[in-house]
Amino acid sequence: MVVRSTIMDTNSFRAEDADSLDNETRALTDKRERLLGESYRLFYRRPVHLVKGEGQYLWDASGKKYLDVYNNVASIGHCHPAVIEAVNQQMRSLNTHTRYLHERILNYSEDILGTMPQAVNKAMYMCTGSEANDLAIRVAQSYSGGTGIIVSQEAYHGTSQLTSGCSPALGSGQPLAATTRLIATPDHYRLAGKDVGAWFAQQMQMQIDDMKANGIKFAGFLADSIFSSDGVLPGEPGFLKPAIDVVHQNGGIFIADEVQPGFARTGEAFWGFARHDIVPDVVTTGKPMGNGIPVSGLFAKADVLAAFSDQIPYFNTFGGNPVAMAAAEAVLDVIRTEELQQHSLTVGNQLKAELSKLIDRYECVGDVRGAGLFIGFELVTDKESKAPNKALALDLIERLRDKGVLTSVAGPHGNVLKLRPPLAFQTQDIDWLVGALDESLQEARS
Amino acid sequence: MVVRSTIMDTNSFRAEDADSLDNETRALTDKRERLLGESYRLFYRRPVHLVKGEGQYLWDASGKKYLDVYNNVASIGHCHPAVIEAVNQQMRSLNTHTRYLHERILNYSEDILGTMPQAVNKAMYMCTGSEANDLAIRVAQSYSGGTGIIVSQEAYHGTSQLTSGCSPALGSGQPLAATTRLIATPDHYRLAGKDVGAWFAQQMQMQIDDMKANGIKFAGFLADSIFSSDGVLPGEPGFLKPAIDVVHQNGGIFIADEVQPGFARTGEAFWGFARHDIVPDVVTTGKPMGNGIPVSGLFAKADVLAAFSDQIPYFNTFGGNPVAMAAAEAVLDVIRTEELQQHSLTVGNQLKAELSKLIDRYECVGDVRGAGLFIGFELVTDKESKAPNKALALDLIERLRDKGVLTSVAGPHGNVLKLRPPLAFQTQDIDWLVGALDESLQEARS
Repeated sequence: MVVRSTIMDTNSFRAEDADSLDNETRALTDKRERLLGESYRLFYRRPVHLVKGEGQYLWDASGKKYLDVYNNVASIGHCHPAVIEAVNQQMRSLNTHTRYLHERILNYSEDILGTMPQAVNKAMYMCTGSEANDLAIRVAQSYSGGTGIIVSQEAYHGTSQLTSGCSPALGSGQPLAATTRLIATPDHYRLAGKDVGAWFAQQMQMQIDDMKANGIKFAGFLADSIFSSDGVLPGEPGFLKPAIDVVHQNGGIFIADEVQPGFARTGEAFWGFARHDIVPDVVTTGKPMGNGIPVSGLFAKADVLAAFSDQIPYFNTFGGNPVAMAAAEAVLDVIRTEELQQHSLTVGNQLKAELSKLIDRYECVGDVRGAGLFIGFELVTDKESKAPNKALALDLIERLRDKGVLTSVAGPHGNVLKLRPPLAFQTQDIDWLVGALDESLQEARS
Repeated sequence: MVVRSTIMDTNSFRAEDADSLDNETRALTDKRERLLGESYRLFYRRPVHLVKGEGQYLWDASGKKYLDVYNNVASIGHCHPAVIEAVNQQMRSLNTHTRYLHERILNYSEDILGTMPQAVNKAMYMCTGSEANDLAIRVAQSYSGGTGIIVSQEAYHGTSQLTSGCSPALGSGQPLAATTRLIATPDHYRLAGKDVGAWFAQQMQMQIDDMKANGIKFAGFLADSIFSSDGVLPGEPGFLKPAIDVVHQNGGIFIADEVQPGFARTGEAFWGFARHDIVPDVVTTGKPMGNGIPVSGLFAKADVLAAFSDQIPYFNTFGGNPVAMAAAEAVLDVIRTEELQQHSLTVGNQLKAELSKLIDRYECVGDVRGAGLFIGFELVTDKESKAPNKALALDLIERLRDKGVLTSVAGPHGNVLKLRPPLAFQTQDIDWLVGALDESLQEARS
């Protein structure tokens, strides 16, 4: 029995903090409480009221500048002119839907499929990662004839009923589907010395066997290959392969959820799965795809998709519309022309090196790991026990916010700083981030 | 046992039509076949390749002009400058998400909730109508403690697994959920002489009783109040009220799916439910909300929403982001400043009057009905039997396309023309539409 946390709730604003806010902020939080559903969460004890963004920087209403080390939606940089221009041009001429012919969806499909293994050759479009994963699970179930889906222990795959039932990160208020199984995470930090690839493949077989024992037919494994909400666990390139072989040997499919590691983020490859030399059966995309314009995609092997699409029409009104495709195309172009994959690798390695120096200086800094500009910074009570230090992580998040650095936490214990800036993050930003973190660690110690 | 059709498939392009296409069109349909999943459908035997839109008009690649009598997404008119400008301005300054404070979501929420009954006082945002309905069903289930959802016989409520299971319009390839019940549609044309309000309330009780008999606890009734995919059945204002009373008496909630009738479309009220003097428990919106920018909403009574939102965090990455809210705000403003609700009523009535003249001239025109610029034009074999004439409807759709009029069909038999132009449709467009329809009817007769 896995104990389920509520990571999504960890560094949220709470009503009891309201009295400490300035009047302007208080007016906004009160208005939110009055008008918005209570499922909404705000970051920080003192929520941030943003008014402007550019590249890797954000500004609040008082003019204070922030370094964004969290948001992967504005992946190529906040307010990137290429996306603004592409959207504006397309909005001025036409914005309809996929039941009429239009070149943009076809040109984009050709372009994006060209970045994937040849076997992944069919494209579909939605508006959100949730919609992409919801469809992907249905495709897995149609293809396999099974219902069982394996996800990682702290996975988050979406907000729809189907994807929520596969998202333990939503906390214990959200029931998991009876057909969902949670696989232990490849926590390389705590599995040090083990052959993590073989170990993870074994864990996969155990979950599949458990399904079988309970009369559930296995449909597939759904994971983002950097295990973002599990605490950012990139692991060694290739370690995932044996587990995916087990998935296939048991008749299931592998759905690579690229909402987190995709679009050049890891630096080592354009897609997260490509770090592991895997050919996924289905690839889903979302967040960074349109730099903030809602667009998501599902890309699949034709034969895997056919079991679903031969039976069921699927029409997503806004999905793949000319404006969404214009934004998506602009993002792909910018990643190439600004060489953001190489940039992510280079600057990510520099950042990781600087952050790693803090390991020696602080007993509480247990591990620094990452791929490209996606880095996990793990706080522990001490290096020997490696016991998660959630309180410290939350404290640091708030201190960093005060020093103008925006980030958040991840992992089942909420003790890992999730450092995932827009890819516009530059070498010269490292000082601000690492300096602020260093100071915050010192303050927390004293 | 209700026989389920596949209305969504009716006027689709089919591969066998490919040989009759011009080379340019053929190249595009071939490319679609190669690159896109097979769930995608194209309208028309000779698909339309659109390149430009303005107001109620569209243009194809050859320069041919079309009158759009189908698309309610570009509700205030294709490429409306107010939306283009609002989106561009906001994209230039900031586009993040709801975990930071921002005025736009709050100002919009205040504005839109002001158009609804006072009891509906909480707002949440997503990207698509499917996402809004998926959440609404979960809210109904949390609040009622039941699982049973009633929808109309040919309802369409979305593409997610949960909403697809409540969408018989998707055809027999899509299994309905075991907890879904279909209620007979309030077909005023065929129920002529009956007290449809009392009849429909009785049908509602029958379905609730059937659930009870099968051990399913009733959660709610989900419907768009103009029964769009059931064949556009607006009925008399107020006729829905007794059925909604039955829903409430049995512990369920009413979810008003306003994706079709909302945002001034019916002319008689800003919202479809308001024609019936009903206070819904949950209201969902989508398509016309952002005039093509993906944005949708869920608006609910605080106590109904609380059962869900006290338990489960809900974060929709793009939902309610500043750009989506800018588009939505512009749409609301334009509806007011251009007085589109009154316009829809006036022009809708003129159009209905002209279309009704065809009833006397053609034995096959059985019924013309509508509210504002949402009109159903029903084709029958003869007025006595009222037998649906699907073949004629499909033939007319293709003939209309050739005459530059874009529309589609609705209803369980696919024999109702769904006339639902952008609200930018003008009095002077009536001649084109009615003239083309008249000609097409003559051609079909000969």
